[in-house]
Amino acid sequence: MVDVRQASLGEAINRKYPESVVLIVTQDPDGITNVMPAGWSMFTSGEPLMLAISVGVSRHTHTNLERSDELVIAFPSPVQVDDLVFCRSHSGAEVDKLAESSLEPIPASEVTPPLLRKATACFECRKGPALHTGDHTIFANEVLATHVSKTYAERVKNLGREYGDGPERFNTL
Amino acid sequence: MVDVRQASLGEAINRKYPESVVLIVTQDPDGITNVMPAGWSMFTSGEPLMLAISVGVSRHTHTNLERSDELVIAFPSPVQVDDLVFCRSHSGAEVDKLAESSLEPIPASEVTPPLLRKATACFECRKGPALHTGDHTIFANEVLATHVSKTYAERVKNLGREYGDGPERFNTL
Repeated sequence: MVDVRQASLGEAINRKYPESVVLIVTQDPDGITNVMPAGWSMFTSGEPLMLAISVGVSRHTHTNLERSDELVIAFPSPVQVDDLVFCRSHSGAEVDKLAESSLEPIPASEVTPPLLRKATACFECRKGPALHTGDHTIFANEVLATHVSKTYAERVKNLGREYGDGPERFNTL
Repeated sequence: MVDVRQASLGEAINRKYPESVVLIVTQDPDGITNVMPAGWSMFTSGEPLMLAISVGVSRHTHTNLERSDELVIAFPSPVQVDDLVFCRSHSGAEVDKLAESSLEPIPASEVTPPLLRKATACFECRKGPALHTGDHTIFANEVLATHVSKTYAERVKNLGREYGDGPERFNTL
Protein backbone atom coordinates (compact mmCIF):
# COMPACT_ATOMS: atom_id res chain seq x y z
CA MET A 1 0.00 0.00 0.00
CA VAL A 2 2.99 2.26 0.58
CA ASP A 3 3.69 2.40 -3.14
CA VAL A 4 0.61 4.49 -3.92
CA ARG A 5 0.38 8.13 -2.90
CA GLN A 6 -2.21 10.85 -3.31
CA ALA A 7 -1.11 13.21 -6.08
CA SER A 8 -2.10 16.56 -7.53
CA LEU A 9 -4.50 16.51 -10.46
CA GLY A 10 -1.70 17.76 -12.72
CA GLU A 11 0.71 15.03 -11.76
CA ALA A 12 -1.89 12.30 -12.21
CA ILE A 13 -3.11 13.72 -15.53
CA ASN A 14 0.46 13.88 -16.77
CA ARG A 15 0.51 10.08 -16.82
CA LYS A 16 -1.96 10.08 -19.71
CA TYR A 17 0.68 10.94 -22.33
CA PRO A 18 1.24 10.20 -25.16
CA GLU A 19 -2.30 11.35 -25.95
CA SER A 20 -4.22 11.29 -29.22
CA VAL A 21 -4.72 14.44 -31.26
CA VAL A 22 -7.42 15.07 -33.83
CA LEU A 23 -8.05 17.98 -36.15
CA ILE A 24 -11.68 19.12 -36.02
CA VAL A 25 -12.77 20.72 -39.30
CA THR A 26 -15.92 22.89 -39.19
CA GLN A 27 -17.40 25.77 -41.13
CA ASP A 28 -19.15 28.98 -40.11
CA PRO A 29 -22.35 30.15 -41.86
CA ASP A 30 -20.23 32.07 -44.42
CA GLY A 31 -18.43 28.88 -45.41
CA ILE A 32 -15.13 29.82 -43.77
CA THR A 33 -13.40 26.64 -42.61
CA ASN A 34 -11.84 26.33 -39.18
CA VAL A 35 -9.38 23.66 -38.05
CA MET A 36 -8.94 23.03 -34.32
CA PRO A 37 -6.55 20.48 -32.80
CA ALA A 38 -8.14 18.63 -29.89
CA GLY A 39 -6.68 16.11 -27.47
CA TRP A 40 -9.98 14.91 -26.12
CA SER A 41 -11.72 12.50 -28.48
CA MET A 42 -12.89 8.89 -28.41
CA PHE A 43 -14.94 6.47 -30.40
CA THR A 44 -18.25 5.90 -28.62
CA SER A 45 -20.30 3.45 -30.66
CA GLY A 46 -19.56 0.58 -33.01
CA GLU A 47 -22.97 0.29 -34.67
CA PRO A 48 -23.47 2.96 -35.91
CA LEU A 49 -19.87 4.09 -35.78
CA MET A 50 -19.70 7.25 -33.69
CA LEU A 51 -16.75 9.44 -32.77
CA ALA A 52 -17.03 11.86 -29.82
CA ILE A 53 -15.05 15.04 -29.25
CA SER A 54 -14.90 17.38 -26.26
CA VAL A 55 -14.76 21.07 -27.19
CA GLY A 56 -14.25 24.02 -24.85
CA VAL A 57 -17.36 26.19 -24.69
CA SER A 58 -15.35 29.32 -25.52
CA ARG A 59 -13.85 27.88 -28.72
CA HIS A 60 -14.73 29.09 -32.20
CA THR A 61 -15.29 25.43 -33.15
CA HIS A 62 -17.95 25.26 -30.41
CA THR A 63 -19.74 28.23 -32.00
CA ASN A 64 -19.52 26.57 -35.41
CA LEU A 65 -20.95 23.32 -34.05
CA GLU A 66 -23.86 25.16 -32.48
CA ARG A 67 -24.81 26.37 -35.96
CA SER A 68 -23.89 23.39 -38.15
CA ASP A 69 -24.53 19.66 -38.12
CA GLU A 70 -21.52 18.66 -40.19
CA LEU A 71 -17.84 18.23 -39.43
CA VAL A 72 -14.75 16.30 -40.43
CA ILE A 73 -12.46 14.73 -37.83
CA ALA A 74 -8.92 14.04 -39.09
CA PHE A 75 -5.98 12.11 -37.65
CA PRO A 76 -2.96 14.32 -38.42
CA SER A 77 0.15 12.88 -40.05
CA PRO A 78 3.75 13.93 -39.28
CA VAL A 79 3.89 16.35 -42.23
CA GLN A 80 1.02 18.33 -40.68
CA VAL A 81 2.73 19.05 -37.35
CA ASP A 82 3.68 22.66 -38.11
CA ASP A 83 0.11 23.35 -39.24
CA LEU A 84 -1.24 21.64 -36.15
CA VAL A 85 0.89 23.89 -33.94
CA PHE A 86 -0.24 26.95 -35.92
CA CYS A 87 -3.92 26.02 -35.57
CA ARG A 88 -3.40 25.32 -31.87
CA SER A 89 -2.12 28.82 -31.16
CA HIS A 90 -4.62 30.83 -33.21
CA SER A 91 -8.39 31.23 -33.06
CA GLY A 92 -10.63 30.78 -36.08
CA ALA A 93 -12.57 33.81 -34.82
CA GLU A 94 -9.58 35.95 -35.87
CA VAL A 95 -7.63 34.01 -38.47
CA ASP A 96 -8.57 32.11 -41.64
CA LYS A 97 -6.48 29.09 -40.75
CA LEU A 98 -6.62 27.41 -44.14
CA ALA A 99 -5.47 30.63 -45.82
CA GLU A 100 -2.66 31.12 -43.28
CA SER A 101 -1.37 27.53 -43.08
CA SER A 102 -0.29 24.94 -45.61
CA LEU A 103 -3.22 22.65 -44.84
CA GLU A 104 -4.86 21.59 -48.10
CA PRO A 105 -8.64 21.13 -48.13
CA ILE A 106 -10.20 18.67 -50.56
CA PRO A 107 -13.92 18.05 -51.04
CA ALA A 108 -15.64 15.55 -48.78
CA SER A 109 -18.26 13.19 -50.18
CA GLU A 110 -21.12 13.55 -47.66
CA VAL A 111 -20.57 16.83 -45.79
CA THR A 112 -19.70 20.43 -46.59
CA PRO A 113 -16.54 20.88 -44.45
CA PRO A 114 -13.49 19.58 -46.34
CA LEU A 115 -11.12 16.70 -45.81
CA LEU A 116 -7.44 17.55 -45.17
CA ARG A 117 -5.25 16.14 -47.92
CA LYS A 118 -2.25 14.87 -45.95
CA ALA A 119 -4.15 13.57 -42.93
CA THR A 120 -3.62 9.92 -42.06
CA ALA A 121 -7.38 9.34 -41.87
CA CYS A 122 -10.46 11.54 -42.21
CA PHE A 123 -13.93 10.83 -40.80
CA GLU A 124 -16.88 12.67 -42.33
CA CYS A 125 -19.43 13.15 -39.56
CA ARG A 126 -22.95 14.29 -38.83
CA LYS A 127 -23.27 15.87 -35.40
CA GLY A 128 -25.36 13.77 -33.01
CA PRO A 129 -26.34 14.27 -29.37
CA ALA A 130 -24.35 16.68 -27.20
CA LEU A 131 -23.66 16.73 -23.46
CA HIS A 132 -22.55 19.67 -21.32
CA THR A 133 -19.66 18.66 -19.06
CA GLY A 134 -18.10 21.41 -16.99
CA ASP A 135 -16.23 23.85 -19.24
CA HIS A 136 -16.50 21.64 -22.35
CA THR A 137 -19.28 20.08 -24.45
CA ILE A 138 -19.14 16.52 -25.71
CA PHE A 139 -20.36 16.24 -29.29
CA ALA A 140 -21.08 12.64 -30.32
CA ASN A 141 -20.93 12.32 -34.10
CA GLU A 142 -22.04 9.64 -36.51
CA VAL A 143 -19.41 8.67 -39.07
CA LEU A 144 -20.79 8.88 -42.62
CA ALA A 145 -17.68 8.18 -44.70
CA THR A 146 -14.02 7.41 -44.09
CA HIS A 147 -10.85 8.16 -46.05
CA VAL A 148 -7.19 7.30 -45.61
CA SER A 149 -4.01 8.73 -47.06
CA LYS A 150 -2.19 6.56 -49.56
CA THR A 151 1.08 8.17 -48.46
CA TYR A 152 0.89 8.81 -44.73
CA ALA A 153 -0.11 5.89 -42.51
CA GLU A 154 1.18 7.13 -39.15
CA ARG A 155 -0.66 9.44 -36.83
CA VAL A 156 1.06 11.95 -34.57
CA LYS A 157 0.41 12.04 -30.82
CA ASN A 158 0.82 14.69 -28.15
CA LEU A 159 3.93 13.49 -26.31
CA GLY A 160 3.36 15.64 -23.23
CA ARG A 161 4.21 18.86 -21.48
CA GLU A 162 7.85 17.98 -20.98
CA TYR A 163 8.29 18.37 -24.75
CA GLY A 164 7.25 22.03 -24.63
CA ASP A 165 4.49 23.57 -26.68
CA GLY A 166 6.01 23.59 -30.18
CA PRO A 167 6.38 21.03 -32.98
CA GLU A 168 8.66 18.79 -30.90
CA ARG A 169 5.66 17.98 -28.73
CA PHE A 170 3.89 16.17 -31.60
CA ASN A 171 5.33 13.07 -33.21
CA THR A 172 4.67 9.47 -34.09
CA LEU A 173 5.76 6.80 -31.62
CA MET B 1 -5.93 14.71 -54.46
CA VAL B 2 -4.97 11.29 -55.76
CA ASP B 3 -3.22 10.46 -52.52
CA VAL B 4 -6.48 10.19 -50.53
CA ARG B 5 -8.87 7.32 -51.07
CA GLN B 6 -12.16 6.29 -49.56
CA ALA B 7 -11.60 3.45 -47.11
CA SER B 8 -13.61 0.98 -45.09
CA LEU B 9 -14.50 1.97 -41.55
CA GLY B 10 -12.19 -0.74 -40.23
CA GLU B 11 -9.21 0.42 -42.23
CA ALA B 12 -9.68 4.04 -41.18
CA ILE B 13 -10.27 3.14 -37.53
CA ASN B 14 -7.13 1.03 -37.54
CA ARG B 15 -5.12 4.24 -37.89
CA LYS B 16 -6.10 5.24 -34.36
CA TYR B 17 -3.57 2.88 -32.71
CA PRO B 18 -1.80 2.96 -30.30
CA GLU B 19 -4.91 3.74 -28.25
CA SER B 20 -5.31 4.47 -24.56
CA VAL B 21 -6.65 1.85 -22.17
CA VAL B 22 -8.24 2.46 -18.80
CA LEU B 23 -9.47 0.06 -16.14
CA ILE B 24 -12.97 0.99 -14.93
CA VAL B 25 -13.56 -0.13 -11.33
CA THR B 26 -17.19 -0.35 -10.18
CA GLN B 27 -19.20 -2.21 -7.58
CA ASP B 28 -22.56 -3.94 -7.64
CA PRO B 29 -25.13 -3.48 -4.83
CA ASP B 30 -23.58 -6.44 -2.96
CA GLY B 31 -20.19 -4.74 -2.94
CA ILE B 32 -18.60 -7.08 -5.49
CA THR B 33 -15.98 -5.17 -7.43
CA ASN B 34 -15.76 -5.37 -11.22
CA VAL B 35 -12.81 -4.26 -13.37
CA MET B 36 -13.41 -3.58 -17.07
CA PRO B 37 -10.70 -2.49 -19.53
CA ALA B 38 -11.96 0.19 -21.91
CA GLY B 39 -10.33 1.81 -24.89
CA TRP B 40 -12.77 4.66 -25.16
CA SER B 41 -12.10 7.38 -22.61
CA MET B 42 -11.19 11.06 -22.65
CA PHE B 43 -10.90 13.99 -20.32
CA THR B 44 -13.82 16.34 -20.94
CA SER B 45 -13.47 19.30 -18.57
CA GLY B 46 -10.62 21.11 -16.89
CA GLU B 47 -12.61 22.96 -14.22
CA PRO B 48 -13.96 20.85 -12.64
CA LEU B 49 -11.75 18.03 -13.86
CA MET B 50 -13.94 15.46 -15.58
CA LEU B 51 -13.06 12.16 -17.21
CA ALA B 52 -15.51 10.53 -19.65
CA ILE B 53 -15.78 6.86 -20.54
CA SER B 54 -17.87 5.08 -23.17
CA VAL B 55 -19.35 1.77 -21.98
CA GLY B 56 -21.25 -0.78 -24.06
CA VAL B 57 -24.87 -1.02 -22.97
CA SER B 58 -24.63 -4.79 -22.56
CA ARG B 59 -21.65 -4.66 -20.20
CA HIS B 60 -21.79 -5.56 -16.53
CA THR B 61 -20.03 -2.26 -15.79
CA HIS B 62 -22.95 -0.49 -17.50
CA THR B 63 -25.36 -2.23 -15.11
CA ASN B 64 -23.20 -1.26 -12.14
CA LEU B 65 -23.09 2.38 -13.26
CA GLU B 66 -26.86 2.47 -13.59
CA ARG B 67 -27.08 1.60 -9.89
CA SER B 68 -24.10 3.45 -8.42
CA ASP B 69 -22.67 6.96 -8.60
CA GLU B 70 -19.08 6.05 -7.76
CA LEU B 71 -16.21 4.59 -9.74
CA VAL B 72 -12.44 4.54 -10.04
CA ILE B 73 -10.71 4.95 -13.39
CA ALA B 74 -7.15 3.60 -13.47
CA PHE B 75 -4.31 3.86 -15.99
CA PRO B 76 -2.80 0.34 -16.07
CA SER B 77 0.94 -0.19 -15.72
CA PRO B 78 2.98 -2.87 -17.53
CA VAL B 79 2.82 -5.29 -14.58
CA GLN B 80 -0.98 -5.36 -14.90
CA VAL B 81 -1.13 -6.53 -18.52
CA ASP B 82 -1.98 -10.16 -17.76
CA ASP B 83 -4.78 -9.02 -15.45
CA LEU B 84 -5.99 -6.56 -18.07
CA VAL B 85 -6.22 -9.36 -20.64
CA PHE B 86 -8.03 -11.57 -18.11
CA CYS B 87 -10.55 -8.84 -17.29
CA ARG B 88 -11.03 -8.16 -20.99
CA SER B 89 -12.07 -11.72 -21.75
CA HIS B 90 -14.39 -12.35 -18.79
CA SER B 91 -17.62 -10.72 -17.62
CA GLY B 92 -18.13 -9.49 -14.09
CA ALA B 93 -21.63 -10.94 -14.34
CA GLU B 94 -20.05 -14.41 -14.17
CA VAL B 95 -16.64 -14.02 -12.56
CA ASP B 96 -15.35 -12.22 -9.46
CA LYS B 97 -12.42 -10.64 -11.28
CA LEU B 98 -10.54 -9.47 -8.21
CA ALA B 99 -10.72 -12.96 -6.72
CA GLU B 100 -9.61 -14.59 -9.98
CA SER B 101 -6.81 -12.19 -10.95
CA SER B 102 -3.78 -10.79 -9.20
CA LEU B 103 -5.16 -7.23 -9.15
CA GLU B 104 -4.82 -5.81 -5.65
CA PRO B 105 -7.55 -3.46 -4.39
CA ILE B 106 -6.69 -0.82 -1.82
CA PRO B 107 -9.15 1.58 -0.19
CA ALA B 108 -9.97 4.82 -1.99
CA SER B 109 -10.35 8.05 -0.02
CA GLU B 110 -13.63 9.46 -1.39
CA VAL B 111 -15.52 6.57 -3.01
CA THR B 112 -16.41 2.98 -2.21
CA PRO B 113 -14.87 1.17 -5.23
CA PRO B 114 -11.16 0.52 -4.59
CA LEU B 115 -8.00 1.80 -6.17
CA LEU B 116 -5.76 -0.75 -7.91
CA ARG B 117 -2.38 -0.93 -6.21
CA LYS B 118 -0.01 -1.22 -9.18
CA ALA B 119 -1.84 1.17 -11.51
CA THR B 120 0.15 4.08 -12.86
CA ALA B 121 -2.57 6.55 -11.83
CA CYS B 122 -6.03 6.21 -10.26
CA PHE B 123 -8.87 8.74 -10.48
CA GLU B 124 -11.63 8.55 -7.89
CA CYS B 125 -14.80 9.74 -9.60
CA ARG B 126 -18.42 10.64 -8.99
CA LYS B 127 -20.63 9.80 -11.95
CA GLY B 128 -21.99 12.90 -13.69
CA PRO B 129 -24.25 13.31 -16.72
CA ALA B 130 -24.65 10.45 -19.20
CA LEU B 131 -25.38 10.41 -22.92
CA HIS B 132 -26.75 7.55 -25.01
CA THR B 133 -24.70 7.13 -28.19
CA GLY B 134 -25.57 4.18 -30.40
CA ASP B 135 -24.59 0.93 -28.68
CA HIS B 136 -22.63 2.66 -25.88
CA THR B 137 -23.33 5.20 -23.13
CA ILE B 138 -20.95 8.03 -22.35
CA PHE B 139 -20.57 8.57 -18.61
CA ALA B 140 -18.93 11.91 -17.75
CA ASN B 141 -17.39 11.73 -14.28
CA GLU B 142 -16.08 14.36 -11.91
CA VAL B 143 -12.64 13.57 -10.49
CA LEU B 144 -12.65 13.77 -6.67
CA ALA B 145 -9.15 12.56 -5.83
CA THR B 146 -6.07 11.37 -7.72
CA HIS B 147 -3.31 8.92 -6.87
CA VAL B 148 -0.13 7.80 -8.58
CA SER B 149 2.15 4.81 -8.16
CA LYS B 150 5.54 5.49 -6.63
CA THR B 151 6.92 2.55 -8.60
CA TYR B 152 5.17 2.44 -11.97
CA ALA B 153 5.15 5.66 -14.00
CA GLU B 154 4.41 4.26 -17.46
CA ARG B 155 0.99 3.47 -18.80
CA VAL B 156 0.29 0.66 -21.26
CA LYS B 157 -1.51 1.28 -24.54
CA ASN B 158 -3.46 -0.93 -26.92
CA LEU B 159 -1.00 -1.34 -29.81
CA GLY B 160 -3.61 -2.56 -32.28
CA ARG B 161 -5.17 -5.58 -33.89
CA GLU B 162 -2.02 -6.66 -35.67
CA TYR B 163 -0.60 -7.60 -32.25
CA GLY B 164 -3.36 -10.15 -31.66
CA ASP B 165 -5.63 -10.24 -28.67
CA GLY B 166 -3.29 -11.36 -25.90
CA PRO B 167 -0.73 -9.67 -23.64
CA GLU B 168 1.52 -8.74 -26.58
CA ARG B 169 -1.15 -6.28 -27.69
CA PHE B 170 -0.64 -4.10 -24.57
CA ASN B 171 2.63 -2.36 -23.85
CA THR B 172 4.27 0.96 -23.15
CA LEU B 173 5.66 2.90 -26.09
